[in-house]
This record gives sequence, C-alpha cells and structure tokens, in this order.
Amino acid sequence: MNHHSEAGLPQFMVPGWSGFIGEHTFLAEEIVEFAKAYDPQPFHIDAQAARASLFGSLCASGWHTASMWMRKQRDYTQKYLAERAKNGLPAAEFGPSPGFENLKWPKPVYAGDTIRYFNQTTACRKSRSRPGWHIMSARSSGKNQHDELVLTFESAVMLKYPV
Amino acid sequence: MNHHSEAGLPQFMVPGWSGFIGEHTFLAEEIVEFAKAYDPQPFHIDAQAARASLFGSLCASGWHTASMWMRKQRDYTQKYLAERAKNGLPAAEFGPSPGFENLKWPKPVYAGDTIRYFNQTTACRKSRSRPGWHIMSARSSGKNQHDELVLTFESAVMLKYPV
Repeated sequence: MNHHSEAGLPQFMVPGWSGFIGEHTFLAEEIVEFAKAYDPQPFHIDAQAARASLFGSLCASGWHTASMWMRKQRDYTQKYLAERAKNGLPAAEFGPSPGFENLKWPKPVYAGDTIRYFNQTTACRKSRSRPGWHIMSARSSGKNQHDELVLTFESAVMLKYPV
Repeated sequence: MNHHSEAGLPQFMVPGWSGFIGEHTFLAEEIVEFAKAYDPQPFHIDAQAARASLFGSLCASGWHTASMWMRKQRDYTQKYLAERAKNGLPAAEFGPSPGFENLKWPKPVYAGDTIRYFNQTTACRKSRSRPGWHIMSARSSGKNQHDELVLTFESAVMLKYPV
C-alpha cells in the first residue's frame, strides 16, 4: 500500500481517492445511550416501542450513525498520517468544515448491525483566503452487513498542509 | 398561546410557523466527553491544543451541536403535543427523515456558550406512498449568546397525523 501519492500529498487529499475508513457494530445498549442523550424517540430507546413503529425494530439515531462516521474518519486519517510521519512526511491538520450536503439515511441502522464507512475525495483546492490551507470535498457513505446504504452525504473540510 | 391551529393541526405542522424550541449551555466537560467518543480532534478535547488551533479555544464538535438540536426538537414537540393531548387532540408521531441539506456551522460553539435553537416550518404535505403520513420540511438554526448563527440546516421528516 502506498502511504503517499507521488507528489507527497496524503492520499486522501488526491481527488479520485476512495477507501474504506472503518467499521462499527451498533449495539442496542449504545444506541439507547446515545438516543437518551440526543434523540429520545421511542424507536431509538425502547425495543418494544420500536417494534410497533414504522422502523419495526430498535434502530440508531441518524445523528449517532453520522457521528460515528466522524470518529472513523478521524481514526483513519490519524493512523494514516502517523504512518507517513515515520517517513518524515508532514501531517495534515484538519480545521473547520464549510458544510455538509445531501445528508441521508436510506435505511435504518438496527441494533447489531455492522456499518462499514467509506470516503471518496471529489475535489481538493487551495484556499484563497487562508494560505497553507486547502478545501477538500468528499462523498461519504455507510453500508450495513447486507451491503445496503444506511448513510450518504457530501462534505467539505479545511485542511492545513504545507504545499 | 394557541396550542393548536384553527384546523386542529399541531402548530409546527403549519407552513410559516416559526419558534424557539430550546436552549443548551455547552460546558467544557460535555464537549470533551462527546468529542472523545465521536470527534476526538485536538480543538474539541484539549483546551491548550484548541488555543493553538484555528478555532482559538475549546469548541464543540459540529455533530454535538447538531445532535443537541435533535434533543431540543424532540423535547419541544413532545411537550407541545402533551399539552394538546389534555384537550383531547391527537398526537403526531415522528418517523424517518428523508434527509438534511445545507448543514453548516457558521461559527464555533465555544465552551460556556449558550445556544438557542429555532425551527421554521417551510412546507408540509401529505405522503402519497404512506396514507396518514405527512412530509414536513423545516429550516433550523442555532444562535449563540451574541446572536451569531452557529448552526443552520434544512430538514425533512415524516409525521403521522390523522387528517
């Protein structure tokens, strides 16, 4: 596996790059814990009520599955950048996000589902207003163990990298 | 305060309705707790590292401020519907969301900031595919104690209501 592009840029900053960034199994206990704090709807906190709902079974808050993408994105990029650092290559520093678009949850994430998260870099350009910073755009998704999409969105993020 | 529109619909289902749905003060401890689980970037988990970052001070994950909107939305609608139920008016049951658009975090939410959340109903139509269900669209926002926008997005959600 190449840990840097020919230009020395982190792979994930190169438009066209796509990859698996990590997976997570959503257990009932953590689904309920997140939902009690942030999204206490019956189908997220009560298995019996969930069975009577349109969802049919206990499922995770959409904010939970989206937040877990963020965690996998962070873990993936940090591990990758740490590997590069061993070869003396500079780190990329993540900053604010200009925003997200088309955030969708095509299927519920049920208790016990394992979600695999994927990123695809669609663009990366230098910021005009902030020298040294880049604006990276990506398409991201999550798929369950049946290969069904459960999360899709497009994002942008600011990245500091010395080129 | 009117707890129902003249047609008996919950206020928040009537296009044009807008209102304050709740507020939350983001303390450093909970900012760090959420971020350690879902968004462990230096400026969300370490006050000293945050001061050296583009943000300048410890601030909440965007997923945290968005998830808190969900909590306030839930609490607001349930309290409102419970009041209506005292007058024998039916409940509206929330279901899946067709998606969110233009999710933006125009300013950071710093430790100690109090965010006030607002919703505005922009459309509400009957679902063609699911009798008894409606699709409600809204614009939502969060503002800090300086009246600066810190969160904006457009959303849609399915709602079961007997009309």
